[in-house]
Amino acid sequence: MFDTVNLEDARRVIAAAEKKAAAIGQPMNIAVADAGGNLVAHVRMDGAWLGSIDISIKKAYTSRAFDIATKDLATHSQSGNQFFGIHASNNGKIMIFAGGIPLKRDGRVVGAIGVSGGSGEQDHAVAEAGAAAL
Amino acid sequence: MFDTVNLEDARRVIAAAEKKAAAIGQPMNIAVADAGGNLVAHVRMDGAWLGSIDISIKKAYTSRAFDIATKDLATHSQSGNQFFGIHASNNGKIMIFAGGIPLKRDGRVVGAIGVSGGSGEQDHAVAEAGAAAL
Amino acid sequence: MFDTVNLEDARRVIAAAEKKAAAIGQPMNIAVADAGGNLVAHVRMDGAWLGSIDISIKKAYTSRAFDIATKDLATHSQSGNQFFGIHASNNGKIMIFAGGIPLKRDGRVVGAIGVSGGSGEQDHAVAEAGAAAL
Amino acid sequence: MFDTVNLEDARRVIAAAEKKAAAIGQPMNIAVADAGGNLVAHVRMDGAWLGSIDISIKKAYTSRAFDIATKDLATHSQSGNQFFGIHASNNGKIMIFAGGIPLKRDGRVVGAIGVSGGSGEQDHAVAEAGAAAL
Repeated sequence: MFDTVNLEDARRVIAAAEKKAAAIGQPMNIAVADAGGNLVAHVRMDGAWLGSIDISIKKAYTSRAFDIATKDLATHSQSGNQFFGIHASNNGKIMIFAGGIPLKRDGRVVGAIGVSGGSGEQDHAVAEAGAAAL
Repeated sequence: MFDTVNLEDARRVIAAAEKKAAAIGQPMNIAVADAGGNLVAHVRMDGAWLGSIDISIKKAYTSRAFDIATKDLATHSQSGNQFFGIHASNNGKIMIFAGGIPLKRDGRVVGAIGVSGGSGEQDHAVAEAGAAAL
Repeated sequence: MFDTVNLEDARRVIAAAEKKAAAIGQPMNIAVADAGGNLVAHVRMDGAWLGSIDISIKKAYTSRAFDIATKDLATHSQSGNQFFGIHASNNGKIMIFAGGIPLKRDGRVVGAIGVSGGSGEQDHAVAEAGAAAL
Repeated sequence: MFDTVNLEDARRVIAAAEKKAAAIGQPMNIAVADAGGNLVAHVRMDGAWLGSIDISIKKAYTSRAFDIATKDLATHSQSGNQFFGIHASNNGKIMIFAGGIPLKRDGRVVGAIGVSGGSGEQDHAVAEAGAAAL
């Protein structure tokens, strides 16, 4: 038995992320995955990068797959570090740069948000704004 | 210059499709692609099939890729017919069964909707309801 | 919030399936997926086909992805029928022949079993024996 | 004639690995491959990372594929070293970080264990515990 985000949750998270993206003036792709790592909802804001559709969805997956912010996974995955090479796993679904954050309820991971469309710092900030709205 | 759906359009289309899906009591995955065939937005209604996430997105792509309802493409793609084998093209992105419909404005295709989660007939009906809302 | 099989459940299901496979004298690959479609456990009985490792895992995924026995999905997926072409979706993870069955508890799908290693009839029979043990 | 682990061996190895994982309080994915590099059995302990299912299976494959602990392969595979880029081979089946160990009987490699779910150090320690039980 486990808790997971539903579509209503995902929409609330996405709305908060969009608001933040608008505030910093950077259109984004925003995706939310559930506790099983499967996509619940995705939006591409007008003008956001096409190549970031896939990345936002995969950041959400990655963040749930390892219950970690992709920003932190990035640190462990550089050449010389303990998880270098992890991006070759899971048939290309692993993204190892900032923008994915686990969604938690009562201390348990119930899904994840993935954001892509700006700098790593911007993506992470927008993801944080979304995660805070769960 | 080409005309294309934006996020606001996609949301209006999805809302109409969701309403129809709720009316027939079948939760659906609903995706909207733009004039470039790229995903604009996706939602998975609570309880909709996991395997239909991918299918809804690919039906939208397929429908825009060939400017045709996937229901009609299906006819041409059965064993013995002129497009049999087309599902092996485009790196697995082609879906050849009902549920994808081009979105038109002033007679021009500006995107597509893809729906998956029920019978072919249900998917097509929900897609039609969405397309009518553009 | 949803219910899902855990490792203990998966082992009980696999044990029952193995017993059935032994009874009919056909070594099998047996896989169990959880409510999110993700693998919980897999065994390859001695002498079972190598090519069936992948198939058993994908039958379990497919059965949960569409909440249907793959034997029934097969019917809908033949040329001329409503889901023909579905095997091209989900990046090669869809198996459309007998051997995958949803696992249910209190009427809700909480995972799935996938069996591969014999005829379609044998695979389905072994999967049924496993499913009955949940 | 070659010697290889069978399902009974794999279960003994997995049981020992699970015991170690429980002792260190870190749920793991554990996989065993045979002398042909093909999966014999896999378990995901309750609470273990979803993204580690694939990684555990691929660590076992990698370890048998090159008859080496993946921890040692990691050293050779960093940027600047002799096997940098090897993770792009074998269609994405190569994992180059700690957690995979060859299984040996009478000095010959008869399979491999792959563990994923914690730090590289934890994964390797659990794999060692499993390998010792062959």
